[in-house]
Amino acid sequence: MFERTEEVKVMRDPIHGYIHVHYKVIWDCINAREFQRLRRIHQLGGDFQVYHTAEHTRFSHSLGVYEIVRRMVEEIEELSRSLSEYEKCAAMLAGLLHDLGHGPFSHAFEAVSDCHHEQFTQRILLEDSEIHRILSAADVRLPQDVADIIGYRYKNDLLNQLVSGQLDADRMDYLLRDAYFTGTSYGTFDMERILRTIRIQDAHLAVKESGIHSVEDYIMARYHMYWQVYLHPVARSYEIMIALLFERMKTLWKQKPSFFAGLEMFTPFLIGERVAIEALFLLDEAAALYGFALLTQRSDPILRDLAARVLDRRLFAYTQEEADTYAKICPIAKANGYDPQYYVHRDHVTQKPYSPYKGRQGTHVIWIVDEQGTLSELSEKSAIVSALVDAKVKEQHLVYYPAELEPFLTPGADAHTRQ
Amino acid sequence: MFERTEEVKVMRDPIHGYIHVHYKVIWDCINAREFQRLRRIHQLGGDFQVYHTAEHTRFSHSLGVYEIVRRMVEEIEELSRSLSEYEKCAAMLAGLLHDLGHGPFSHAFEAVSDCHHEQFTQRILLEDSEIHRILSAADVRLPQDVADIIGYRYKNDLLNQLVSGQLDADRMDYLLRDAYFTGTSYGTFDMERILRTIRIQDAHLAVKESGIHSVEDYIMARYHMYWQVYLHPVARSYEIMIALLFERMKTLWKQKPSFFAGLEMFTPFLIGERVAIEALFLLDEAAALYGFALLTQRSDPILRDLAARVLDRRLFAYTQEEADTYAKICPIAKANGYDPQYYVHRDHVTQKPYSPYKGRQGTHVIWIVDEQGTLSELSEKSAIVSALVDAKVKEQHLVYYPAELEPFLTPGADAHTRQ
Amino acid sequence: MFERTEEVKVMRDPIHGYIHVHYKVIWDCINAREFQRLRRIHQLGGDFQVYHTAEHTRFSHSLGVYEIVRRMVEEIEELSRSLSEYEKCAAMLAGLLHDLGHGPFSHAFEAVSDCHHEQFTQRILLEDSEIHRILSAADVRLPQDVADIIGYRYKNDLLNQLVSGQLDADRMDYLLRDAYFTGTSYGTFDMERILRTIRIQDAHLAVKESGIHSVEDYIMARYHMYWQVYLHPVARSYEIMIALLFERMKTLWKQKPSFFAGLEMFTPFLIGERVAIEALFLLDEAAALYGFALLTQRSDPILRDLAARVLDRRLFAYTQEEADTYAKICPIAKANGYDPQYYVHRDHVTQKPYSPYKGRQGTHVIWIVDEQGTLSELSEKSAIVSALVDAKVKEQHLVYYPAELEPFLTPGADAHTRQ
Amino acid sequence: MFERTEEVKVMRDPIHGYIHVHYKVIWDCINAREFQRLRRIHQLGGDFQVYHTAEHTRFSHSLGVYEIVRRMVEEIEELSRSLSEYEKCAAMLAGLLHDLGHGPFSHAFEAVSDCHHEQFTQRILLEDSEIHRILSAADVRLPQDVADIIGYRYKNDLLNQLVSGQLDADRMDYLLRDAYFTGTSYGTFDMERILRTIRIQDAHLAVKESGIHSVEDYIMARYHMYWQVYLHPVARSYEIMIALLFERMKTLWKQKPSFFAGLEMFTPFLIGERVAIEALFLLDEAAALYGFALLTQRSDPILRDLAARVLDRRLFAYTQEEADTYAKICPIAKANGYDPQYYVHRDHVTQKPYSPYKGRQGTHVIWIVDEQGTLSELSEKSAIVSALVDAKVKEQHLVYYPAELEPFLTPGADAHTRQ
Repeated sequence: MFERTEEVKVMRDPIHGYIHVHYKVIWDCINAREFQRLRRIHQLGGDFQVYHTAEHTRFSHSLGVYEIVRRMVEEIEELSRSLSEYEKCAAMLAGLLHDLGHGPFSHAFEAVSDCHHEQFTQRILLEDSEIHRILSAADVRLPQDVADIIGYRYKNDLLNQLVSGQLDADRMDYLLRDAYFTGTSYGTFDMERILRTIRIQDAHLAVKESGIHSVEDYIMARYHMYWQVYLHPVARSYEIMIALLFERMKTLWKQKPSFFAGLEMFTPFLIGERVAIEALFLLDEAAALYGFALLTQRSDPILRDLAARVLDRRLFAYTQEEADTYAKICPIAKANGYDPQYYVHRDHVTQKPYSPYKGRQGTHVIWIVDEQGTLSELSEKSAIVSALVDAKVKEQHLVYYPAELEPFLTPGADAHTRQ
Repeated sequence: MFERTEEVKVMRDPIHGYIHVHYKVIWDCINAREFQRLRRIHQLGGDFQVYHTAEHTRFSHSLGVYEIVRRMVEEIEELSRSLSEYEKCAAMLAGLLHDLGHGPFSHAFEAVSDCHHEQFTQRILLEDSEIHRILSAADVRLPQDVADIIGYRYKNDLLNQLVSGQLDADRMDYLLRDAYFTGTSYGTFDMERILRTIRIQDAHLAVKESGIHSVEDYIMARYHMYWQVYLHPVARSYEIMIALLFERMKTLWKQKPSFFAGLEMFTPFLIGERVAIEALFLLDEAAALYGFALLTQRSDPILRDLAARVLDRRLFAYTQEEADTYAKICPIAKANGYDPQYYVHRDHVTQKPYSPYKGRQGTHVIWIVDEQGTLSELSEKSAIVSALVDAKVKEQHLVYYPAELEPFLTPGADAHTRQ
Repeated sequence: MFERTEEVKVMRDPIHGYIHVHYKVIWDCINAREFQRLRRIHQLGGDFQVYHTAEHTRFSHSLGVYEIVRRMVEEIEELSRSLSEYEKCAAMLAGLLHDLGHGPFSHAFEAVSDCHHEQFTQRILLEDSEIHRILSAADVRLPQDVADIIGYRYKNDLLNQLVSGQLDADRMDYLLRDAYFTGTSYGTFDMERILRTIRIQDAHLAVKESGIHSVEDYIMARYHMYWQVYLHPVARSYEIMIALLFERMKTLWKQKPSFFAGLEMFTPFLIGERVAIEALFLLDEAAALYGFALLTQRSDPILRDLAARVLDRRLFAYTQEEADTYAKICPIAKANGYDPQYYVHRDHVTQKPYSPYKGRQGTHVIWIVDEQGTLSELSEKSAIVSALVDAKVKEQHLVYYPAELEPFLTPGADAHTRQ
Repeated sequence: MFERTEEVKVMRDPIHGYIHVHYKVIWDCINAREFQRLRRIHQLGGDFQVYHTAEHTRFSHSLGVYEIVRRMVEEIEELSRSLSEYEKCAAMLAGLLHDLGHGPFSHAFEAVSDCHHEQFTQRILLEDSEIHRILSAADVRLPQDVADIIGYRYKNDLLNQLVSGQLDADRMDYLLRDAYFTGTSYGTFDMERILRTIRIQDAHLAVKESGIHSVEDYIMARYHMYWQVYLHPVARSYEIMIALLFERMKTLWKQKPSFFAGLEMFTPFLIGERVAIEALFLLDEAAALYGFALLTQRSDPILRDLAARVLDRRLFAYTQEEADTYAKICPIAKANGYDPQYYVHRDHVTQKPYSPYKGRQGTHVIWIVDEQGTLSELSEKSAIVSALVDAKVKEQHLVYYPAELEPFLTPGADAHTRQ
């Protein structure tokens, strides 16, 4: 039904060997400007501050997710048989386009801007955009159906699970990709074996019992990547500083909008109203970083300073938070001329390796299927995972502050300077 | 003190890049006949029956253990400073020579022969052998000290821990090496980081808190390798058949020793008395496999059949053991002409990911050291490991029998043929 | 002499395992703003347009070159013995800082701007910069000596060779790194073996005869990377479009400088006079890309169009150049409204695998040293390399033009659209 | 037509990820005793004496060749379309079974025994064997057709080319596999790309012009593997000693056959008459090595000594051969009690990277096909390969002798002891 490319298009990829494209609509989406924009958004917010080679973008990751979905719908026999060509294409497109709405330094930015990437992704698909036109031209139902799969509300729940379940193409790609580009071994697991052991049972994606070890490995990979990469205190430091910088811009915007003349790259997001798609298109990391460079020459001393710290990587130091840590650091900061609102920050993060939760049609569960076709939730079948579910939640409570303050803190405090 | 090689000797190794040898006594041991014999003993008993590329030998593994010990005593600063050159060499030699006494298909063979490789290793070091002469010539204390380190009774406990603690050179090499040669990803962990974070505290090897994730990864790698490789039912099938074959030989030996004329490669081990070192030297896997080939032409139908099965890989099938499985299969085997003693076998294996046990000077514990120099046992610091310690022990209860019997078993039994 | 870091600083790196830093002056340079700026300059100009994961920056590469120089001066015994600590540090710093002056899309940009990165690198080292202050504080001679090593004019020629000979740390890092990040196997060679076989003979770096195969492999890796990556027609297309875009800006600047109000990121380079170091500091790829985004909304139709093509990856198509290709395409372009000066471009590239040239103290030669200590130029010892030296030079003559023109070209022309 | 396995059978393989088996006849052949025997024949004769991890067998390699043929006939579109299922299966079987006739230490052994593995392979396929019965049962034509493909005389020449052309499945697998198991990088090339660019043109396998770099890389990989692995002087030393050992056995056999009582593993090959298939089946490396162990206790001093050297790796030393080297060493050997016939050996090897030879239907040529469908021989299209074709042939002329003789040789001779 969908037009095929003249011959299969391939793109070299270190994670998957090659990305294979057979359909013209997919090839056209890759070449659309909203998708090409993802080349200017890093995949990992602040992690390249710790792992200097983690410089890969959402562009590469999106291609990788597409490729995994493609393999799933073509190679998992029960999926390949039961899905129509239309549904297969829609699923592949959902994999490809699921991150379209990400802004620069995404999580830091979203935290202060009220602009959620999920919502932007939906708008790019459904409003007037090059992507929207390409999808509509191929099939008038596509924009809505792709948006529905990404939004986890498509009528055939299998497609939702492929793109964003607990064992989905998104996570599989980012764990492997982030491990490769950070140069760590934490994120590796045997995707080939997982793909080979996925079955469809009672309308759920489920892994055969013989694949259970690969899934345990995947759960551990996820857990380790969180603590070693995604929540690394130094990466958090960078993200926190960017969030504080935006915080400061929001305050200034309310007080004195004229300050932002010549800083138009930031204004749409400060306005806070419904931003035009086109404005989003313009706000990429190039724009933000150039904006930071301009801020270093502006009059507001806080923005000027924070922007220079971000660009030159003079990251905040951090220390374990005890009962009174925050209360003790704030006056020290103040005494040294730093406004605690922008210079002292408490950061609490927790992460469980895996939490089965059987609501919402079983989405948040990894299913195991035995030879009799009975489904069990992963932790019922895996002693290891069961132990992890019961494990004490690991927490990280830190207070961040300018490294220059360290000599003023009580001696003996366990402070870390950058890297 | 020890003579150095003219220039550093290097051997290419896929796991470590290169094996580096600086001392003549080590180079000479590598070239000794008892060490070269390890080229004729596979590292993994029956696993190449499942993972066909797992064809590596104890020779390569022994070089790898040596290389890790060498790096430990040279690169871990506190070890490098505190150990004498003599102790460093003794530790490296212990790493190199710790597997010297292994016989063919080691665990299967030991199970029936009362010949334990640990004891043979000690004898090769201490009795009249080429290795013994090389060590004595370098320093008269060496044979006993190397044997003591391997036996975990050397006076400086650090050396014992390097070679056979819970986080020792032996395990680190075999996990990485077995993963590489099976082609699986299960055994990978970040050895570089572990080596970088090892410290000496209160006479214990301990890992800095910042290395705790690498150690968690190592524990999981170990766990997965056990279930995916070392205890794989198909690998067990091969090892069980070899054990049954030796069992049968023992019985025949008691009844009719003349049967073994022309099968002299087996006799020393059947005699059961104190075997000469030289006899051990001759019993390698080449001898055993050739002996099996001869057995296929001998009159005893059981040996004849079992030997042919082993050589031609007609492995026993297996099924989950329920209360009466064994009782049900035995008469079926008998009715089909198979003596249950040699043709039906129950196999129970269990494996915990990690069990801290603080006896014997803390050997069986992985220690974590914090910035204040306080030691804690790993599971006190790691929520994951703590959960694993409390996890239900995973068990595998199987019954093995000739695959030809499958049609005679109750239909519906969950039987697996080879691979 | 130089202050050491408290403990060795390490940074994970997929190419080298870890980058190790022992000296405070090196650590401080890494943290200097001019060095951090390299995070905003891609290592490969247009190659991420072909190999989408080639998104790594000059920051990572510079760390890698530093690490190789560090290993050379520490691990090559004759270097380690003969160089003073001062010279070792100066060489490591030269490796680290050799790319400091690169601008955005470096080669494309240099082609039109008269701003050569070599010259900027020298100025950053010698004029008033954070790097200059750090180097001077460590040793007043350092800025000039580091600049001299990078400029290949330091008095001890060995240091020049380490950083920029024919078999230098720069090339070794980029071949391995670019291969890793493109996901191709072309750039791999056995660096470990080359490092192990480097000797010093008659004041030249030379490779022992036993390492000759590794060097042949390195020469081939270089050759293949050129054709498969660096000179790939699609990568060239991107670089050519950026060069044409700058060309157009230069023309406009002469006609109407007021056009550039609000485009201050570009002006310093258009002025053409001696740019201030600070201006260079600001011109990174973030600034250039944001500038391009602004250009898409400006009045000049050529800049507007070319900038949008670059951002959205609507790359020029290309065809083999025959005698009259260029002459035929130009009027077709014109007839379709495209000014040939900015829309039709001839590109000629050639590349030899290796050209020995024995001038200038033998710089451009790879020396092989035999067991008698006699030096020979590589191609005298290697039949393969000798054949390559005599090989016909491979050439690539292409004409680039907008892909929309393809239907208008003579049918049968061998035109390639993007990717 | 052919019966399929119940579900696809997979075997983990580090080179190919997984080996996939869809047909019962192929699965049965893998499980046949003549194929399982290949587990007891190393892939590389003496190379594990240099690269200690090169312990892989012809069993793994044969599975790898099968997998590449399978991918070729399924993934190369023009092959997939034009071949019948019968021809596809025959080609896959030919890939799997092409090495069936190899004896122990194959090349060394063949050199003296007049037993060529090609001929044995044909006999196992065509005479009474388990493999023959399996093939015949699947299709009565199969044994002959598989034998014909392996013998390069099948009527559809494409099948011959797949298994043993210049760019065939056999070489591709062994280069990649030997590189992996030696731990060197020399044998790597981009097989994925080569497979993707293979086309059928005028009944020839040909590579598209865009794949030419991958083919150049493959040619270089081949060349380097020859010199760094296959022809390594230390590996040759081991193979030469085994050849001399067999030489000595042949002489003794003629003089005194009774010597071989109890050494029956060797007799069939000494008899020199048409050996029974069953005798070949028994002569594997286990038998040969056990035979060597027995020889160390026999009366003939030459066999006794050579066998012990082989088992204990006391390899011959070697020196460059000058005009009179051999003539000088022989009397020295004699004077020290060594019979030069068995203790001094000249070895001459040469290797060209690639020699196009257009006879025999173009077999010995790699074809390149351009966009117009014109075929050219590789060296006409590749400047690099053309240069290599014209390169001086590299030669290695060495004389081997017992290492103990070194002190007696003229001082200054360039002698190498083991490794």
